[in-house]
Amino acid sequence: MKQGNERPLKLVFFESSLELVPQELWSHPSVYKAAWKRGKQPGKTLLDSSLHHQAIRQARLPEAEKRGRPDVVHILLLEALSSPLNEAGVLEIYIHTIGDYVITVRPETRIPRNYNRFVGLIEQLFEEGRVPPNAPTPLMEIRPMTIRSLVRLLKPTHTILYSWGIEAPRRRTREIAEEVQEAIEAGSTVVLLLPGYPHGNPRDSTIEVAEKRYTPLARLEAWTLASHTLALIADRLGLL
Amino acid sequence: MKQGNERPLKLVFFESSLELVPQELWSHPSVYKAAWKRGKQPGKTLLDSSLHHQAIRQARLPEAEKRGRPDVVHILLLEALSSPLNEAGVLEIYIHTIGDYVITVRPETRIPRNYNRFVGLIEQLFEEGRVPPNAPTPLMEIRPMTIRSLVRLLKPTHTILYSWGIEAPRRRTREIAEEVQEAIEAGSTVVLLLPGYPHGNPRDSTIEVAEKRYTPLARLEAWTLASHTLALIADRLGLL
Repeated sequence: MKQGNERPLKLVFFESSLELVPQELWSHPSVYKAAWKRGKQPGKTLLDSSLHHQAIRQARLPEAEKRGRPDVVHILLLEALSSPLNEAGVLEIYIHTIGDYVITVRPETRIPRNYNRFVGLIEQLFEEGRVPPNAPTPLMEIRPMTIRSLVRLLKPTHTILYSWGIEAPRRRTREIAEEVQEAIEAGSTVVLLLPGYPHGNPRDSTIEVAEKRYTPLARLEAWTLASHTLALIADRLGLL
Repeated sequence: MKQGNERPLKLVFFESSLELVPQELWSHPSVYKAAWKRGKQPGKTLLDSSLHHQAIRQARLPEAEKRGRPDVVHILLLEALSSPLNEAGVLEIYIHTIGDYVITVRPETRIPRNYNRFVGLIEQLFEEGRVPPNAPTPLMEIRPMTIRSLVRLLKPTHTILYSWGIEAPRRRTREIAEEVQEAIEAGSTVVLLLPGYPHGNPRDSTIEVAEKRYTPLARLEAWTLASHTLALIADRLGLL
């Protein structure tokens, strides 16, 4: 399945709900109180709707429904990294964020299971650009990058977007899995684009990079769409 | 699929890693400091290895590898409640805990997405016996109960244990899904037993209640075993 060092399935969570608190929110009481409690500057903490809900509403941030949900990305990463596809050398994981950064995640990364530690790690990643900061081959790296640049860089033969909130044919998850399996077994590389946020629809700039677009039978939570799609692909490949 | 009010698939997470801090740990510095910070008595807080790791080790708690991981149960619940099987009226969810309590979870429960709020909710559940405490029909209830009593109460026609760490035939997840589907479509009720802890093996008392026992192809994380098994069942039932 593995072709040299190349992992054929590139999973991209798009517009993921992961960002530092934007400057216009720094002076909001809920924001600086939460940051102060942790001994941090507001601009070095993650936007988190469970702490900053009021501030997000009052500031009328654009695309507010997608933002401040590191918990969603945490579960997506836990599910993707512990997928049999990752173990088998099939999967590569990328997090494209709402602020147009891309985080590359090495397959052997062990993400903290505890949410608060996960938040601390991602804050360090935003500050240092890589974690661990001084390792010769960091487990995660972040750099500014649009989804279009990422896909261009990955040079896939197939780019599949599977999401609610787009005008596209309905497909059962098993049909996506079948398409991915056939492509991989033919020696192709596939970029699979899944939403990295809880609510809202994909941006046009995301939709445009996908050569094929499908929508699932039902509106699932982002982590269910991801875990269930990975499960059916692993099943088709005989890994589950 | 639904038979009257009866939901045919009873998902039981066994020996789940959810308990209050046991008394022998109350005086450990890491325990009372963490409780004090939250303005709580140690015995009213959840055991959490991300806070109490040292105390757990020093006290040499039995089955330590299974304990203090509310984060595992959090993800299991998020995955189960947002499964298409729950939406379709197929699934009932039970959490049997390591201390022999059983938590019943109503299908319409919206579990907090944020980990710290989830912990607070479960602490309230342990204290009050139900949440919300004053609702006529609570979303979650807890009572002392062994896994044997729970299974007897549920009166299933099939009881299937799917886990690592047991001597049992290996089965692909799709085979489990097929067996569950066939039973449900024949009008039977199925108890499906999945591990609710990160490490360690099922107790004999758990193994004994299962009429059928299978082990997966690979050692997966508890949440991956759960989400992938639910995915394949949903697929078989045409819900995904």
